[in-house]
Amino acid sequence: MESSKRSKRTRKSGGVYAAILAGGIGSRFWPLSRETTPKQLLKVVGDESLLKSTIRRLSPLVPSDRVLIVTNARQAEIIRLHLSYGGDGKALKPGYIVEPLGKNTAAAIALAAFDIYRKDPEGIMAILPADHIIKDGKSFRATVKAAIEAAREGHLVTFGIVPTSPETGYGYIKAGAKAVSRINGYSVKPVERFVEKPDIKRARKYLASGGYFWNSGIFLWKAARILDEIKTYLPEVYNGLDSANSPAETAEAYKGFKDISIDHAILEKAKDVVVIPADFPWSDMGTWSSFGEILEPDENGNIVKGRVVDIGSENSIIIGCDRAVATIGLKDFILVDTPDATLVCPKERAQEVKEVVNILKKKKYIEHEVHKTVERPWGSFTLLEHGEGYKIKKIRVEPGRRLSLQLHKYRSEHWVVITGVARVQRGEETVDIAINQSTYIPRGVKHRLENPGETPLEIIEVQNGEYVEEGDIVRFDDDFERK
Amino acid sequence: MESSKRSKRTRKSGGVYAAILAGGIGSRFWPLSRETTPKQLLKVVGDESLLKSTIRRLSPLVPSDRVLIVTNARQAEIIRLHLSYGGDGKALKPGYIVEPLGKNTAAAIALAAFDIYRKDPEGIMAILPADHIIKDGKSFRATVKAAIEAAREGHLVTFGIVPTSPETGYGYIKAGAKAVSRINGYSVKPVERFVEKPDIKRARKYLASGGYFWNSGIFLWKAARILDEIKTYLPEVYNGLDSANSPAETAEAYKGFKDISIDHAILEKAKDVVVIPADFPWSDMGTWSSFGEILEPDENGNIVKGRVVDIGSENSIIIGCDRAVATIGLKDFILVDTPDATLVCPKERAQEVKEVVNILKKKKYIEHEVHKTVERPWGSFTLLEHGEGYKIKKIRVEPGRRLSLQLHKYRSEHWVVITGVARVQRGEETVDIAINQSTYIPRGVKHRLENPGETPLEIIEVQNGEYVEEGDIVRFDDDFERK
Repeated sequence: MESSKRSKRTRKSGGVYAAILAGGIGSRFWPLSRETTPKQLLKVVGDESLLKSTIRRLSPLVPSDRVLIVTNARQAEIIRLHLSYGGDGKALKPGYIVEPLGKNTAAAIALAAFDIYRKDPEGIMAILPADHIIKDGKSFRATVKAAIEAAREGHLVTFGIVPTSPETGYGYIKAGAKAVSRINGYSVKPVERFVEKPDIKRARKYLASGGYFWNSGIFLWKAARILDEIKTYLPEVYNGLDSANSPAETAEAYKGFKDISIDHAILEKAKDVVVIPADFPWSDMGTWSSFGEILEPDENGNIVKGRVVDIGSENSIIIGCDRAVATIGLKDFILVDTPDATLVCPKERAQEVKEVVNILKKKKYIEHEVHKTVERPWGSFTLLEHGEGYKIKKIRVEPGRRLSLQLHKYRSEHWVVITGVARVQRGEETVDIAINQSTYIPRGVKHRLENPGETPLEIIEVQNGEYVEEGDIVRFDDDFERK
Repeated sequence: MESSKRSKRTRKSGGVYAAILAGGIGSRFWPLSRETTPKQLLKVVGDESLLKSTIRRLSPLVPSDRVLIVTNARQAEIIRLHLSYGGDGKALKPGYIVEPLGKNTAAAIALAAFDIYRKDPEGIMAILPADHIIKDGKSFRATVKAAIEAAREGHLVTFGIVPTSPETGYGYIKAGAKAVSRINGYSVKPVERFVEKPDIKRARKYLASGGYFWNSGIFLWKAARILDEIKTYLPEVYNGLDSANSPAETAEAYKGFKDISIDHAILEKAKDVVVIPADFPWSDMGTWSSFGEILEPDENGNIVKGRVVDIGSENSIIIGCDRAVATIGLKDFILVDTPDATLVCPKERAQEVKEVVNILKKKKYIEHEVHKTVERPWGSFTLLEHGEGYKIKKIRVEPGRRLSLQLHKYRSEHWVVITGVARVQRGEETVDIAINQSTYIPRGVKHRLENPGETPLEIIEVQNGEYVEEGDIVRFDDDFERK
């Protein structure tokens, strides 16, 4: 090991890091999830996205500068902008580990492990999916603390969720009877084996036996330890990443990697894999049906949100927005309505939503890619209407923020203020315009829109030109470091 | 009879008139139907509304100036504007018989009969619902011609549709075996009795027997003859209308009228009621399920329109618009999606859509009342966005048309042209503005928007003001005679 590159840099020692796996889109959550709004950026419960919650839940155990987001380049930029304003106005600034390709969890964890090991050979890493719902942060952190101790003892620690129902949608972990360690009241047990998603009969047996846990996909171990296992069980991954000296070399190496999960590649084979029983309320939000676990149904078994009129539906999930939705007699159905797209399907076919997204892509629809309202670090814009040679947007700028200094080569823009005050830089002049005032930005003129006030600014923008897509922006200066 | 008012005016004699009953909203067709877009104004098949088709189908047998639209005041104005431009650019100008209250078909037909009788004591009247689909106009007119002859012979003629399936949604007419008359190949038979909607078993029997017809609600008779029957069986209606000398007196009389159909009030009791067998393809478009009769289903039994992605649905009606709709595994379902509202229900509960509309009303939603795009005689406008103190519209003006000369007391307007050329009268000046140009109409300034070109004009209008509703219009001049 001494000759290996992974040990070449040593600074501090034994810190705890978190690698948040955020490469997925979560297309089973279409139409709420989109390519540019992956599932982990959705506000499923409360006011915060799943990803922000995942980061904040770790604090103060793992400060956000020791958090690494493992994802692809496109999503890394989307996430960076998403995190550049937190709910409290403060940016979250984790590190980013950019995968050249998606190759399942084994490769992603290996890449993160190398990164952490090179910073800190004694470093401990928690692996967390970005899109889980964990309601009790305190209990979660207590479990993580115990897991850290177990990892320091050298174990590969899996988080086994104490099952509360005979769930057929999760894999299970069978624990050995005898604890290998007791830490802060947690009884750390050896993993006997990993079990694939069971049928309902077996799931009931597992629930009754008490020795089975849901495999949460949350893991914790020393970076050095998992790298040793990767060297043993996935030598091509180990060697490829160990010898890569540049992103291009990493990309080249990735091409040959197997698409395999850490569970299958390592954990089912390695020695000394343990499970720590986690009894915090947990949901992996796999499909729309998961909503039933995290939100309280009404007396008819329905979960209803939005401007919905329902007559006689039962056990259904009906999620609307500001449009009117009317449902009659749905039974075990899912209806999700967004401003530009609607999904209706029986609960038992929720898995097939992924296939819907594939069809949308093939048909070259845009509704799998962007929402009608697009979040930006300065606020958001909503596409109101578009057609040949024009586009109408409502633009909202949060107090004190501003868009980049920019120009467009192919379009001119009319702006009419509908709420607040806009500071408009246009060429050499800067003017403030208020409600009911307008301005015109000719093609090719440098301009910038800013909200100097204490309340949100909203304007209507009418774009005219031969080409009115997002690509037509030349940026000169940007508060959010976009190119 | 000689002393009665109804005979006081005599001009010409024996003409054929049509009274089109157009008082309903057709709320079972929500979300396509709205209070301001009743079912009869929908383009269900082809490019023309059901009402326009109903009027044109009569021509040349009954020219449109002998057509009377029987409806309420609000709908009369909506219909007048709707008919002021036909598909060929020509206005249809029927007469209007405005009912003060909706009191079912007996009162409506009585009011129309008085009107026709007073113009022409020998006048013959056809009664037609405004919202039926009749695909074969030629066959329809041939049946009407024969019915006119039968009416001249003194009969009360009902149109009995030759059944093509054991339909449980219609009332039936049982014909006597022996024809009372043979006219142009039509065998006119006496009505033995009217039968309420049957169960499926009885419906099958009726279909097999050959002596039963669907009651189409289309009737034809001499105005004088039906007035005689009304005098006998509904004397309060007869006397009330006979003695009314003003709309106010008619309204007063109406209050006391029974809410009863012409079938129940008269036809089930009167002598010499005959049925003419009508074998043109006919649908009364009672509920969404009727779509299955008028449109051809695909190989899975589905009727699919719009931007729909479907996986594995069967026997369902899925009607989208320009939004994306995804459906998985619907069986015998109805989904109708419009820009601002979506309906989902099993076919067997299509009747309950009416109840949905009642709930929308109670909740003070607006989606039962107006569409996002509102048709106007000069074109249309689409509400893109609205909020406290502002409203954004896309306005489309057809070539050569113009809006009224108007002013607003509470709002100012910004206009940006996105397609075509706008002629803008603003105060004393008139200017033409083209794509990418804009203008501002301050509050209180008289203005008019006109499309002087050969292609449609589209503008974006941003309204700002303390009150931005349709009510804030003071009109000075209007091509469409609106107040």
